[in-house]
Amino acid sequence: MKTSLGAKTLAVPSPVWVVGTYDGEGKPNFMTAAWGGICCSRPPCIYVSLREATYSHGSIVARGAYTVSVPGEEYWRKADYMGVASGRDTDKLRDTGLTAAESAAVDAPYIEEFPLVLECRVKETVKLGLHTMFVGEILDVKADEEVLTDGFPDIQKVRPLLFGSGDHGYHAVGVRVGDAFTNRKPPIED
Amino acid sequence: MKTSLGAKTLAVPSPVWVVGTYDGEGKPNFMTAAWGGICCSRPPCIYVSLREATYSHGSIVARGAYTVSVPGEEYWRKADYMGVASGRDTDKLRDTGLTAAESAAVDAPYIEEFPLVLECRVKETVKLGLHTMFVGEILDVKADEEVLTDGFPDIQKVRPLLFGSGDHGYHAVGVRVGDAFTNRKPPIED
Repeated sequence: MKTSLGAKTLAVPSPVWVVGTYDGEGKPNFMTAAWGGICCSRPPCIYVSLREATYSHGSIVARGAYTVSVPGEEYWRKADYMGVASGRDTDKLRDTGLTAAESAAVDAPYIEEFPLVLECRVKETVKLGLHTMFVGEILDVKADEEVLTDGFPDIQKVRPLLFGSGDHGYHAVGVRVGDAFTNRKPPIED
Repeated sequence: MKTSLGAKTLAVPSPVWVVGTYDGEGKPNFMTAAWGGICCSRPPCIYVSLREATYSHGSIVARGAYTVSVPGEEYWRKADYMGVASGRDTDKLRDTGLTAAESAAVDAPYIEEFPLVLECRVKETVKLGLHTMFVGEILDVKADEEVLTDGFPDIQKVRPLLFGSGDHGYHAVGVRVGDAFTNRKPPIED
């Protein structure tokens, strides 16, 4: 018997991603978002949903591009701060000591210290209500060598954060449970 | 110095969610998807992206509704199987021993055994390429009492799975790292 909790955004897990843009004067700005995900395999697409009131929203509309930088778990305080402060009021890079790097693929900066970066050109903009969904085509992915296994980013090495929408908390990645796409017959036990 | 990996869907983490629909004959069908996420806070919206070739895709288009059931980590083999097999060829409920429950909020079934369920009415359909994004307005959330803390689903009790797109593996949730929205001043250390 389940309890009804009403119409709320209580899904888990959500990612903790830092969205990079240039503002009208070409200054790098970054904001943390938990409403994001992969949404198409071919062409490879990702989205982030931002409130129209945010500084980053205007920058994405103006430039048609953004990056997603994935912080490792050790950056949780900086990532949290970048979701609370606004680029209108402060320079978040100066505040956090992080470094902006110029993307070769799109007109947007990414965070050098974070181990995994996706560079995106806006493909679709969907206004849903409080949030606008920016679907971006992924033009390139860049990663630090240390987080690769067999040439691919390894979630156990990237150590991304998870956002818990129910507890308003950040959580780490735990153990690897098993291989995907292997159960081609009904599982005999669980 | 980062390595360029090309245009690929290599973001982490992605969720492991089971999408519930009724087919043309009213038979419950379920498929596992990793391309999904929350995309608006008000109205509360979620999306799942499915290939047009899937059996579930047609059911969502026909009924305009779906559910997202969140399996706990102990169900990883069954969740994986439901992402591999097709409802066109087999009865996944019979195969897995799971139970379909009727949603009171929308015209779609959910999985009774899974601890957290979101019931959604299709609000926007966005064809992106191989995948179609179904944005659903969340009409209700239902959860087992055991996974609630202070009335909200606790990710540490739900124990959802994470999909690693680089390693094609499932991963568990690790420790809670800290509180969100608390760093209103620049963090002094990290």
